[in-house]
Amino acid sequence: MKEKLWGGRYSKPTDKLVEDFTESISFDARLAPYDIEGSIAHAKMLAKCGIISVKEKDEIVKGLRDISAEIAHGKFVFDPSLEDVHMNIESALTKKIGKPGEKLHTARSRNDQVALDLRLYLRDQVSQIITLISGLQKAFLHLAEKSKDEIIPGYTHMQHAQPVLFAHHLLAYVEMFERDKGRLADSRARINVLPLGACALAGTSLPIDREFVAKELGFKAVAANSMDAVADRDFVIEFLNNAAMIGMHLSRISEEIVLWAGAEFRVIEIDEQYCTGSSIMPQKKNPDIAELVRGKTGRLYGNLLSVMVMMKGLPLAYNRDMQEDKEPVFDSVDTVKASLAVVAGMIGNMRLKEHRRAKFEGDFSYATDMAEYLVKKGMPFRKAHKVIGQMVSYCIDKGVEMYHLDMQTLKGFAEEFDGDIYKVMDIGACVGSKKSLGGTSYKNVAKALADWKRRLK
Amino acid sequence: MKEKLWGGRYSKPTDKLVEDFTESISFDARLAPYDIEGSIAHAKMLAKCGIISVKEKDEIVKGLRDISAEIAHGKFVFDPSLEDVHMNIESALTKKIGKPGEKLHTARSRNDQVALDLRLYLRDQVSQIITLISGLQKAFLHLAEKSKDEIIPGYTHMQHAQPVLFAHHLLAYVEMFERDKGRLADSRARINVLPLGACALAGTSLPIDREFVAKELGFKAVAANSMDAVADRDFVIEFLNNAAMIGMHLSRISEEIVLWAGAEFRVIEIDEQYCTGSSIMPQKKNPDIAELVRGKTGRLYGNLLSVMVMMKGLPLAYNRDMQEDKEPVFDSVDTVKASLAVVAGMIGNMRLKEHRRAKFEGDFSYATDMAEYLVKKGMPFRKAHKVIGQMVSYCIDKGVEMYHLDMQTLKGFAEEFDGDIYKVMDIGACVGSKKSLGGTSYKNVAKALADWKRRLK
Amino acid sequence: MKEKLWGGRYSKPTDKLVEDFTESISFDARLAPYDIEGSIAHAKMLAKCGIISVKEKDEIVKGLRDISAEIAHGKFVFDPSLEDVHMNIESALTKKIGKPGEKLHTARSRNDQVALDLRLYLRDQVSQIITLISGLQKAFLHLAEKSKDEIIPGYTHMQHAQPVLFAHHLLAYVEMFERDKGRLADSRARINVLPLGACALAGTSLPIDREFVAKELGFKAVAANSMDAVADRDFVIEFLNNAAMIGMHLSRISEEIVLWAGAEFRVIEIDEQYCTGSSIMPQKKNPDIAELVRGKTGRLYGNLLSVMVMMKGLPLAYNRDMQEDKEPVFDSVDTVKASLAVVAGMIGNMRLKEHRRAKFEGDFSYATDMAEYLVKKGMPFRKAHKVIGQMVSYCIDKGVEMYHLDMQTLKGFAEEFDGDIYKVMDIGACVGSKKSLGGTSYKNVAKALADWKRRLK
Amino acid sequence: MKEKLWGGRYSKPTDKLVEDFTESISFDARLAPYDIEGSIAHAKMLAKCGIISVKEKDEIVKGLRDISAEIAHGKFVFDPSLEDVHMNIESALTKKIGKPGEKLHTARSRNDQVALDLRLYLRDQVSQIITLISGLQKAFLHLAEKSKDEIIPGYTHMQHAQPVLFAHHLLAYVEMFERDKGRLADSRARINVLPLGACALAGTSLPIDREFVAKELGFKAVAANSMDAVADRDFVIEFLNNAAMIGMHLSRISEEIVLWAGAEFRVIEIDEQYCTGSSIMPQKKNPDIAELVRGKTGRLYGNLLSVMVMMKGLPLAYNRDMQEDKEPVFDSVDTVKASLAVVAGMIGNMRLKEHRRAKFEGDFSYATDMAEYLVKKGMPFRKAHKVIGQMVSYCIDKGVEMYHLDMQTLKGFAEEFDGDIYKVMDIGACVGSKKSLGGTSYKNVAKALADWKRRLK
Repeated sequence: MKEKLWGGRYSKPTDKLVEDFTESISFDARLAPYDIEGSIAHAKMLAKCGIISVKEKDEIVKGLRDISAEIAHGKFVFDPSLEDVHMNIESALTKKIGKPGEKLHTARSRNDQVALDLRLYLRDQVSQIITLISGLQKAFLHLAEKSKDEIIPGYTHMQHAQPVLFAHHLLAYVEMFERDKGRLADSRARINVLPLGACALAGTSLPIDREFVAKELGFKAVAANSMDAVADRDFVIEFLNNAAMIGMHLSRISEEIVLWAGAEFRVIEIDEQYCTGSSIMPQKKNPDIAELVRGKTGRLYGNLLSVMVMMKGLPLAYNRDMQEDKEPVFDSVDTVKASLAVVAGMIGNMRLKEHRRAKFEGDFSYATDMAEYLVKKGMPFRKAHKVIGQMVSYCIDKGVEMYHLDMQTLKGFAEEFDGDIYKVMDIGACVGSKKSLGGTSYKNVAKALADWKRRLK
Repeated sequence: MKEKLWGGRYSKPTDKLVEDFTESISFDARLAPYDIEGSIAHAKMLAKCGIISVKEKDEIVKGLRDISAEIAHGKFVFDPSLEDVHMNIESALTKKIGKPGEKLHTARSRNDQVALDLRLYLRDQVSQIITLISGLQKAFLHLAEKSKDEIIPGYTHMQHAQPVLFAHHLLAYVEMFERDKGRLADSRARINVLPLGACALAGTSLPIDREFVAKELGFKAVAANSMDAVADRDFVIEFLNNAAMIGMHLSRISEEIVLWAGAEFRVIEIDEQYCTGSSIMPQKKNPDIAELVRGKTGRLYGNLLSVMVMMKGLPLAYNRDMQEDKEPVFDSVDTVKASLAVVAGMIGNMRLKEHRRAKFEGDFSYATDMAEYLVKKGMPFRKAHKVIGQMVSYCIDKGVEMYHLDMQTLKGFAEEFDGDIYKVMDIGACVGSKKSLGGTSYKNVAKALADWKRRLK
Repeated sequence: MKEKLWGGRYSKPTDKLVEDFTESISFDARLAPYDIEGSIAHAKMLAKCGIISVKEKDEIVKGLRDISAEIAHGKFVFDPSLEDVHMNIESALTKKIGKPGEKLHTARSRNDQVALDLRLYLRDQVSQIITLISGLQKAFLHLAEKSKDEIIPGYTHMQHAQPVLFAHHLLAYVEMFERDKGRLADSRARINVLPLGACALAGTSLPIDREFVAKELGFKAVAANSMDAVADRDFVIEFLNNAAMIGMHLSRISEEIVLWAGAEFRVIEIDEQYCTGSSIMPQKKNPDIAELVRGKTGRLYGNLLSVMVMMKGLPLAYNRDMQEDKEPVFDSVDTVKASLAVVAGMIGNMRLKEHRRAKFEGDFSYATDMAEYLVKKGMPFRKAHKVIGQMVSYCIDKGVEMYHLDMQTLKGFAEEFDGDIYKVMDIGACVGSKKSLGGTSYKNVAKALADWKRRLK
Repeated sequence: MKEKLWGGRYSKPTDKLVEDFTESISFDARLAPYDIEGSIAHAKMLAKCGIISVKEKDEIVKGLRDISAEIAHGKFVFDPSLEDVHMNIESALTKKIGKPGEKLHTARSRNDQVALDLRLYLRDQVSQIITLISGLQKAFLHLAEKSKDEIIPGYTHMQHAQPVLFAHHLLAYVEMFERDKGRLADSRARINVLPLGACALAGTSLPIDREFVAKELGFKAVAANSMDAVADRDFVIEFLNNAAMIGMHLSRISEEIVLWAGAEFRVIEIDEQYCTGSSIMPQKKNPDIAELVRGKTGRLYGNLLSVMVMMKGLPLAYNRDMQEDKEPVFDSVDTVKASLAVVAGMIGNMRLKEHRRAKFEGDFSYATDMAEYLVKKGMPFRKAHKVIGQMVSYCIDKGVEMYHLDMQTLKGFAEEFDGDIYKVMDIGACVGSKKSLGGTSYKNVAKALADWKRRLK
């Protein structure tokens, strides 16, 4: 066990159980590149402000870059008795370059340092996730294009409602994920704020220049209150919520894929490479990816709640509880990135089944078009709704489709019916007629596809 | 039991248990003003597009305004057998004005209508909540000004860390709540989108003008995909998350107030008007407001989870599960608004205790300043930290304060000590020295107070 | 505004905003019958111990019974300025009977009183919920009996796996809900403990007899530590978790019902009385009950989280945060009871569709039976699995069922095949063969049905 | 990449991204001992039922025991392309012993196998956790005994309420944790049920003997419905809830320890071995253990919610989502075990501060005793409460303690006061007087300590 860097006032060593319980290096090691990036900027500032010499700064920077390379090449050994990534790196630096290393931690604390690392990390990850979402959107577009003009039932309450273009259905998801990008982009303004220089909580008596550090690290702002700077984890929760929302969206398309792949819906065929089999049933080809992604929603929600619960009722400023922010963040980052990538792959390699089952018999999904037909003939909508409802009831009793009814029978329900009503009951015509802005007509959807292709280029 | 407006195809009445289970009028009645506002804009559009006549539009608008007035005066009776606010109002309208009323529901569905109402409602509430947050920030400023230059211990790990200005501590909360306003403002762009005209899910064959409706209602955009328009509840979850974050912030200040009001901390005195007593213990004066607000964090988190769970795995487009979005939203709106108002009142009427206990004896909270003193004399920080740590240990053993040590003893620990070290150990000097940007120095805090007063005017 | 019963030391009235914020009578009024039951037992004990006279006790009991009757008949007016149900009733009692009323609150506090009320309430509700679960189980049995010997595909990964009896599938839910009853029954031991007599937190100097009160109220035990007695809400959380688990189970059957009712699965027909229609689409008959029940899972999870978050980090003993325990409990009780009742009604009135689609073509759901056939002929299972897997692949390529292959082709895959293999590929035979304990064979299922009918009688 | 054991019908290899996404061996390897235990029992049954030969069984058992030893000695290499612990072990077995290995998976599926492993694992862990809880309870007893007769303020609303014995306060936690043991013990009945033999979901046509396997593995019951057997994760959720409740309890004592260790409360001294320091502030000695344990409540709640969300709306029987059950369980097991152990260590090594601050001046915590004094003299409690309340108000104005008032002044408030009232105002007398069952009197607490020592022996 190493001597603790904060051990001056202590006479007894830390209990081994306690050391294991409190260490974070087993999970915060992934912050090392950000920690080093931050320390280099910090050292430059210390030199600029005359707190250390230029020579000391150069030695520190070189030492840190060497450590960075060692970590990248897997040659650096992290030591749990040094608690965390910060102490591991500082300790290695001092071992490597001596006295200047002992000066690096001037005018900063782990409290502001860990906030810095986490902000640098998340800023980076948010950009990567935005790119992955665009990739998924492109996969949707790809599938939509492949299936152009294919009609599927549109559902409400999971019951046939009105026919829609499959591409229109997919484009709804493109819209959905675009909002995720919007939220992530908005969050960046609140991530991109420099906490370093808040030190433990009160600032410092040393003549530091926080704006210089902010500029070095590409931060748009400097945290204005030193206590808030170290006590704040809003940006973590905001990210976890955005990740949970992405997970929720993924769970919706996953649910649909699971159903579409089944024997009842028979809408799509998932490529074998994206399926797995059963240990006992030889015929199985399971949509595991979609199921796992749907299941991982729980994990993403759990991570969000984990940090929200942890922060509840914490007095200012830093409390050790806050060490518990990292694992949920890392897990949500990993989960979201892997899920987006694998779902994009699965959707990009999916195809509509060739011999899909006939889908519309007996579902009367042209009923709304018929009501609108009557409206156009002057009947109030509410009455038209009722008339068509009674016709549906009549047809169910007789076991016929509405388009099998002769004109006389039709007129028995409403005088307004004319020969052109039969065209209205055609599924293709139903789709084509929805020309209202955002509706599922062929033209609308073609335009939306073209627009999105341009936007995502 | 009323005949259902959708009852055309049905031969049996709804089971009473089912009617009670599915009704939403008991909670969605509060959407009535927004429902009517939306219907008026919809009717205007229908007339503009020639789907109804101008005369019919005028009758509808008048009828709706009358209903609006009846509701405002508590004279409107909502009927659970009419299910929801939409059907109650449409039904009353038709009863009042006859046939034109039967035309109102042309080219829309409850699916897009309820999304519209909820967006109008939330847009409104978000503005109100932003104003209430500003009110709370002003209360913090007010208390900070009253207590100018008062020093309290700054805490990390709930242990004395460094002295800070009480005002500095309070200003951390002003920063925190400012971020809440930022998040709410960002969310407005995603709330302020018109869903109406998506109809059930596919759009309509009628020649409607959604952009006209958007303009009438002050929406910045029109939902671009009809299925997404009715299937989306992101804006609800985003709001609930923002509300939960506000709750988390309120729980932190509440926790502090509960402690500050206690016999051990003795920092503040809560005005009697904001306390309640005990049924059995005659002496009690309890900080109930702070406790309840802290407890309500659970409710705000629960509401968020509730809707996130509900949306998990829902296929497109509308599903009845989504009716469960409203109660959590209403409850979070009410909870956040009431909490912000009552906490603002409590803080605005709070005062620092006159005879506070001496706070700094034996806490060595000047230790960091001493280490920085040594750094300024050229000692590496890590060594300075160790030296001071050993001095702390020495003083604890001897039961003395560091400022009681004579120069010889001091020099025994570090040659760098000089006569000016004694000034460093003064609590006021500790505070004054933290001149780094965002630090707790008198000057910094005075400037921050002035800035915030200007920003919140 | 009424004078507060605890107002002795106060000189200012409570702020109106605060009064509204802190009152609980708007939701805890439903505890009135339990509060009165508890007060009667308390008064009897006070008299028995000589703390009040028998005459005083009689007057108190009579007064409380009168109040009870007034409440039952809707004639009692609850006053928010009296905060809660306890103070409302005590205040009304004193108004009614004078001085003896002022003695009722001897040797108790609201802290132990509210814990008592909540325990009495939950003990009662838990019994009611157990009965409702039995009702739902009976509805499953009823449907299972109506559909005896009907075969449906059994699913894993929502893909056809092996044929099973529909009744077997339904009986899985009977097992599931039986566990809920077990958990509820277990929880009763922890609910059924008397907190009264803990007073504020420390007990009392008055010579009370808690065991007498426990016996009066049917409690099995007396809380052994006065601080724990008032600080404990485990029993609330345990209930909320049991309610959430019931909700999870209900969400599973609801999901299946939504799918079964759809055009693709066509398994069941929900009675019209348990459906609702669409405001725009005349043909719709939606499984709203199932959707709403599924959606309410969110609410049940949210309620659980709400109280868990509220209790996190609360020091002993009572804190006002704990007032937030009641609304979630009441909501979960109401939600679970209504859901169980309405789902039982829906399932009891459901029927299998007469002209269900053929369900098994092309799904090779007899594949496992074929592998087990080969195992019986001596082939290791892992090899048999592989052979059948290759046959599936072959058949998909050729577009045929396995039972269309002639013996020569079969033998080409495995010499072990004989004429009796064709019987194995029959769906009915597949079901019949699963004679292992708990398997889906006709005999097993018939026995299980009979067993359950006896157990639930 | 290894050939998949289920790969018969597949022509393409699994995508690498998919393989990484779906593998579980990185976390389910810890189930290996349970998997092997289950396989040995399964093999014995297969032999007993004549499905495999005794010789084959012997080879299987030997092979599995060898693998078990390899794993225990860290010599077994788990291969992610073999997906999970089950396939890794089966594959290694077949490699080792050949053909008999290919027979092991007869009459079982991974679906029932993983349920079995998880039940064996949890049954084991639950016992270990119960033992650890007893350890923590003993630590509380140890501290209570060391501090016998020490009085601290008892709190409600975190304000001084009535004096209590520190031991009484600690014993409240002993009660609390005893309930956790009760819940865990109850859950065992629902964990201890054999799922094996359900196979994929329908049972098997092979003549297996599940009751034999149950007996071999010490299960009390056999899952009665094959679909429920593989679709059920109630026992996982029930465990996660019990773990979350333990976490909630730990968060409460942790919160108190953090406060007690601070400069304001000064109640206890945490041993240095259970503290850590600050990287910047040389004087710091932080109660990190207590903070981290409190923070981990979030993780425990998150794990519970994670699985509850995952299970929501899952149709029968097995779905791949359910693979997501394991990491939360493992994390909650690890978290709870480590937390219980480390908190027990910290509490066992804690001591009351020698020079605690005087704690009761000005808190009037004898006020309730004074009211009860008046009650004993015949005054109705509600009036007594008011009188004492007014006296408190009077004393605050004058800045005196009540025991400084002379008899004349006392009598001015109530004629009932007599000379013996002064003894009532003594803190020690207050404690001693609470003789009601469960109250804090010295005698009660001594008896409770003795009882618990006996029960925990």
